[in-house]
Amino acid sequence: MSSVHFDGYPHVICAQQFSRKWLEEEFLPLTDEMEEIFKLGGCEVLKGKRMFSFFYQPSTRTRISFQMAMEYLGGRTVFATENAREFSSARKLETLRDTFLVINRYRPDAIVIRYDHDIGAKFAADVSRAPVLNAGDREPGQHPTQALLDLRTIFKCRGAIDGLKIAMVGDLDKGRTVRSLSYLLGKFSGIQLYFVSPANTGMGEDIKMYLHKHEVPFAEHTDLRVVAPEVDVIYQTRAQTECGTLLDMSEGYFIVDRTITGLMKKDAIIMHPLPRVDEITTDVDDDKRAVYLTDQIDSGLFARMALLKIILAPDA
Amino acid sequence: MSSVHFDGYPHVICAQQFSRKWLEEEFLPLTDEMEEIFKLGGCEVLKGKRMFSFFYQPSTRTRISFQMAMEYLGGRTVFATENAREFSSARKLETLRDTFLVINRYRPDAIVIRYDHDIGAKFAADVSRAPVLNAGDREPGQHPTQALLDLRTIFKCRGAIDGLKIAMVGDLDKGRTVRSLSYLLGKFSGIQLYFVSPANTGMGEDIKMYLHKHEVPFAEHTDLRVVAPEVDVIYQTRAQTECGTLLDMSEGYFIVDRTITGLMKKDAIIMHPLPRVDEITTDVDDDKRAVYLTDQIDSGLFARMALLKIILAPDA
Amino acid sequence: MSSVHFDGYPHVICAQQFSRKWLEEEFLPLTDEMEEIFKLGGCEVLKGKRMFSFFYQPSTRTRISFQMAMEYLGGRTVFATENAREFSSARKLETLRDTFLVINRYRPDAIVIRYDHDIGAKFAADVSRAPVLNAGDREPGQHPTQALLDLRTIFKCRGAIDGLKIAMVGDLDKGRTVRSLSYLLGKFSGIQLYFVSPANTGMGEDIKMYLHKHEVPFAEHTDLRVVAPEVDVIYQTRAQTECGTLLDMSEGYFIVDRTITGLMKKDAIIMHPLPRVDEITTDVDDDKRAVYLTDQIDSGLFARMALLKIILAPDA
Repeated sequence: MSSVHFDGYPHVICAQQFSRKWLEEEFLPLTDEMEEIFKLGGCEVLKGKRMFSFFYQPSTRTRISFQMAMEYLGGRTVFATENAREFSSARKLETLRDTFLVINRYRPDAIVIRYDHDIGAKFAADVSRAPVLNAGDREPGQHPTQALLDLRTIFKCRGAIDGLKIAMVGDLDKGRTVRSLSYLLGKFSGIQLYFVSPANTGMGEDIKMYLHKHEVPFAEHTDLRVVAPEVDVIYQTRAQTECGTLLDMSEGYFIVDRTITGLMKKDAIIMHPLPRVDEITTDVDDDKRAVYLTDQIDSGLFARMALLKIILAPDA
Repeated sequence: MSSVHFDGYPHVICAQQFSRKWLEEEFLPLTDEMEEIFKLGGCEVLKGKRMFSFFYQPSTRTRISFQMAMEYLGGRTVFATENAREFSSARKLETLRDTFLVINRYRPDAIVIRYDHDIGAKFAADVSRAPVLNAGDREPGQHPTQALLDLRTIFKCRGAIDGLKIAMVGDLDKGRTVRSLSYLLGKFSGIQLYFVSPANTGMGEDIKMYLHKHEVPFAEHTDLRVVAPEVDVIYQTRAQTECGTLLDMSEGYFIVDRTITGLMKKDAIIMHPLPRVDEITTDVDDDKRAVYLTDQIDSGLFARMALLKIILAPDA
Repeated sequence: MSSVHFDGYPHVICAQQFSRKWLEEEFLPLTDEMEEIFKLGGCEVLKGKRMFSFFYQPSTRTRISFQMAMEYLGGRTVFATENAREFSSARKLETLRDTFLVINRYRPDAIVIRYDHDIGAKFAADVSRAPVLNAGDREPGQHPTQALLDLRTIFKCRGAIDGLKIAMVGDLDKGRTVRSLSYLLGKFSGIQLYFVSPANTGMGEDIKMYLHKHEVPFAEHTDLRVVAPEVDVIYQTRAQTECGTLLDMSEGYFIVDRTITGLMKKDAIIMHPLPRVDEITTDVDDDKRAVYLTDQIDSGLFARMALLKIILAPDA
């Protein structure tokens, strides 16, 4: 395997670090192998390997996906916490650095981190001997393993990435998943992006600059009904609110409902990183094009299994 | 085993689902087998089986009982969280549904849930392929595994259930344990119940209706001293307060103390689901009739081992 | 092994319980054996042994150290919680007693506890059949395994304990680590202690009385620059504040920085129990005399491995 450890960098920190070559020739084929292993009930390729799971905020879904990826490869999560947070504000990154220096003394084989402040994973990786896997920056930031699983989901459902028209919908300026996915899509050809959001939560300028540089055309919209008939993928995201209120519908049309599914292509797909609040109505769940509770979850497991396999047993 | 999976329903959600026949012919004998296995240090009958433990609020006692039940049968708890809660109020059940659809993709063999809102376990079970075990609804609600262990405790200490006089004491309207136990006792013969509580926290009308229908006589009291000499079981419950204050003693006599033990029959027993605050004085703990820190805990382990055995290895 | 279980007492509760003979003849040599085992990747001497980890407040560092100690000896942590706390104030110790009676029914081989109120570990041990290991009292209180690892760190770095001059710096009146370490040092000869702190956070009178009784001379200072050239060990502690502010520098000189390292002996060492805030500047970390992120962490693992080995497999 030529690019073990991502060309010498042993950590998974941001979407930019992956080359198209690696994505196509190593990552995607390996996720299929992982799917086979899962269907067979797992394997023992990571037997004896120890993973730490350090979450500075609870995250049931991402944490379980990483732990089950380790489980189905025969490795073990020997320490997990959702309470890693120690101080409320000051000197947080210095404390994170100390923490990673300390836990490396126990010789873990991998450390999964979700940090709640700044870009902690990058900072942690800089002092870590053990490979660090970023399980999600604080928003806005990145969520690289989500981007990889999203790419894998699209590839499996559509058979290719090149040439696709993809709508990203919702609170785009804070959404780490759409930000990371944009970085990955920028490596492919013929992609057209549609950003559908209220004006004040549009996609960040840094991502737009990146897309310009990589010659990925994008357009900004406020009505998903206009975009739905055009696209191959609708990637809906959660309004970044804890109160469950809808996006302000007076500003446009941002939810995926039966109206939208009625407008979509037959072979398009609907994705969502979860948790969902109101932005996809539940009567859409049984639509065959809705993959957020099925294929997208499975691809999450297979993508993380693939990453752990590459990092912890590259030659096995 | 005739009624594997409780007559086709693979989940453990509420006390009503268990038939007297199943309780007497399968459950209670199996708990004795489980006791033998525990005394021998455990077995491997659930080797390779994976349990998830999803608690929407911390609960040391119930969580450890389930996990140790799995442990002593050779199975494993591969994911546990006490922080499953995600949103504070709106759309909670929709989110729970999504969560259970997601975690089922990882193919767990069983999922234990304690939910903090409404009757989440039932709702979760409706979408779950993996068997769901209810580790306690929000109060008032149910706690079916507690009812099963309570029944087993009574049966082991008294040799039978039929014909017993049982006092339930304390905050009965909110107490999920006494509610679930009442449902089970309604299936037996000759039971007489004594509800001892302040007037404003009496047993709920739904339970009283159920008891009427099953011809279980009950009486309501405010003085445990009157009831104590009559009964075979005193089932004390915790005042549903976090501040540790006593029940209002001006309204009656509701605590179990030396006065009460002095009045009780020699072969009666004292039970409590724990945690205890003040409602049983600690000088009662060494009384041989007090089983809340001994037999009742053990029966909890054996009852949960029996359930897991029935669900995960019915033919082994 | 003559003093298995610390002369008949099977728990690890406070620093006073260890004799100099045990420390020198059993504990310290055993930590070296543990270091060898760790370097070889672990052993199976505790195979089948089950540890519970009960934390009444989160503590990533101490919890991971205990769990990895069990891991590298082949044992398992079968239940861990950082949410053991149940009631906010009243009846806490009674509830703790009930909890320990309950969890002992599951026959754990050891129970690690960090309590958040009073001296819970001692109280828990009084009712526990399983050995209890105190992972830190609420401050002020004790942290005996920290004291043991600190002693081991000093011994390994300096070759002896007798005759050393040791500065303890910072918030001494609340610091459980310096309190426990003082108890251990009182058992050795020729020790001289320097307490460097603001006047209002000086070392507690109980410790001073103990040192007088054991003829350990100590002096109190407010300027670490005066003390630094004299001592063999600087044991810095964290200001007991969550806000990350420095100790009031107008009252003296209490931080370890390049000024201090410039004054220190070449073979002195700098220790800290972590987490660190500002009291050691990060530019000191690469000084060879700084052991708080390296040897001190390692000694923590080896010390806890040694304790678990002594308690759970004394004859293996």
